[in-house]
Amino acid sequence: MKLLYPTSLKLDVPSLEGFGVTLHPYDVKATIPDDLIDAEVLVAWTNSADNLKDAAARMKNLQWIQSLAAGPNDVLNAGFDQSIRVTTGSGLHDRTVAEHALGLLLAAARRFDEMRDYQRQSKWPGHLGGPQPDRPRDRFTTLRDANILLWGYGNIAKTLAPHLTAWGAKVRGVARSAGVRDGTEVFAEESLGELLPQVDALVMILPGSESTKNALNAERLKLLPKHAWVVNVGRGTSVDEDALVAALEGGEIGGAALDVFVKEPLPAESKLYKAPNCIISPHAAGGRPQDPEALIAYNLRRFLAKQELKNLI
Amino acid sequence: MKLLYPTSLKLDVPSLEGFGVTLHPYDVKATIPDDLIDAEVLVAWTNSADNLKDAAARMKNLQWIQSLAAGPNDVLNAGFDQSIRVTTGSGLHDRTVAEHALGLLLAAARRFDEMRDYQRQSKWPGHLGGPQPDRPRDRFTTLRDANILLWGYGNIAKTLAPHLTAWGAKVRGVARSAGVRDGTEVFAEESLGELLPQVDALVMILPGSESTKNALNAERLKLLPKHAWVVNVGRGTSVDEDALVAALEGGEIGGAALDVFVKEPLPAESKLYKAPNCIISPHAAGGRPQDPEALIAYNLRRFLAKQELKNLI
Repeated sequence: MKLLYPTSLKLDVPSLEGFGVTLHPYDVKATIPDDLIDAEVLVAWTNSADNLKDAAARMKNLQWIQSLAAGPNDVLNAGFDQSIRVTTGSGLHDRTVAEHALGLLLAAARRFDEMRDYQRQSKWPGHLGGPQPDRPRDRFTTLRDANILLWGYGNIAKTLAPHLTAWGAKVRGVARSAGVRDGTEVFAEESLGELLPQVDALVMILPGSESTKNALNAERLKLLPKHAWVVNVGRGTSVDEDALVAALEGGEIGGAALDVFVKEPLPAESKLYKAPNCIISPHAAGGRPQDPEALIAYNLRRFLAKQELKNLI
Repeated sequence: MKLLYPTSLKLDVPSLEGFGVTLHPYDVKATIPDDLIDAEVLVAWTNSADNLKDAAARMKNLQWIQSLAAGPNDVLNAGFDQSIRVTTGSGLHDRTVAEHALGLLLAAARRFDEMRDYQRQSKWPGHLGGPQPDRPRDRFTTLRDANILLWGYGNIAKTLAPHLTAWGAKVRGVARSAGVRDGTEVFAEESLGELLPQVDALVMILPGSESTKNALNAERLKLLPKHAWVVNVGRGTSVDEDALVAALEGGEIGGAALDVFVKEPLPAESKLYKAPNCIISPHAAGGRPQDPEALIAYNLRRFLAKQELKNLI
């Protein structure tokens, strides 16, 4: 049996040895070489559309694709036969995305965007420094005592929550079902009406799908307090961008720090670039699956043992 | 006995009752009223120079000044009699300064300053997003596995260290004496020659004094790796700003994120504003003493009991 692994990232290939499967590097930006076309297993990371389309057409023995992306839409849209199992890289991006989300929260609270604007003009934004109110009720200035809602309470949220709590934030979550997860109270979406008005920062970590489209719409934006910040590190489609622009321009929310957008790259004409209190990050939170070998090896053993795979779509 | 408390911040005055001392609000920007001039205790926060100069001249019964600032140079330079005890607000700014320092570290690692520059031009900095190397050795991109040195290992460093460790950083400290403090290895300055070349991020939290002047000088800057970032949330005088500008302009270090400067506001002509990879924050890390009542009450009891005061200069 052959496993093809991408050269688009550093992999500790020896840690995949010992399974009785031959391991072959391949170029994700080129078509699969003829001598590898009969591979049963494909590990994917940043493959070009052409590569995937060609693989879908020609890899007749393919049984399983392990993507290292959390949301491998590229693989799902390439035309692979439905019988081929696809497992995602969910879990490989938890720490990086959580860390970047924390960075965006702090940039929002501490006003780093506004500081940069002044810096570029060689001006000192004195109003952002020196003596300042401690935990004013009408502004999001610090994690301490902040009500932070993590919407889309999956592994990334679970990774982020304890760090926020450690800084004194009061963290709650929203997911498809309610319950207490790892000590955090998680609510179902029906509770948004009560939760959103109490929020100082809303962190969205929803996957991109039909069911999450425009989850944060005009109606829900209106429920947020005037000082609340929205951070999005999930998928851009979960936010109604027009409604968000209106809320920002109208001063209806404190601000938005966004790493994901409906269209990426964000087109120059998007009003988000210039909206007040808006921080734009170019889908930078993840992009570097960490310790993917462990997941690949975990699933490879289960694949060979005909057991259930992890992160199976 | 009279204790005067500043109205320049919200104080929970009832928590200072019960000591048999009368509590009186006063305006820190005006001279002390005649009926309060005989007070024995003065709590200071953002007092004007005139207020302090006048207090120093006319408060003949004054025995103790409790400043809420970590470094109350304003009080020390006002001309008070040497017999008057001065206690500082050290400890009241630990969490806020540590949080802001973390924000600056993440802004540096995740390149929020560069992102903002692109955003202002309605441009998408694609090179900062999407697929990216995981923990490259030649760049500071994440706290995970980063070697972070906290120079000036006091209460702020002790507050910050565990958060950094929780994100996977390898934290060490530098202080006047070596030892292991709360699980962190702290070295004396003699070790800087070995420590600095291993650093990914150097966080300076030194007080402003003659002995710390230009602690980070040209020689020590040269010891830092080309990708290392310098964060300063202590006092501006501990960094040789000309040497820092040279290092930044020469690409000799990865960057600098500074909250404090030799001269504040930083003059428009300072080369730091436009230096490459330089983040300017306007002395914003602290400025809001948290829970000062606990310190005031703690010291008030000890003052009345003729016991040793905390944070005595």
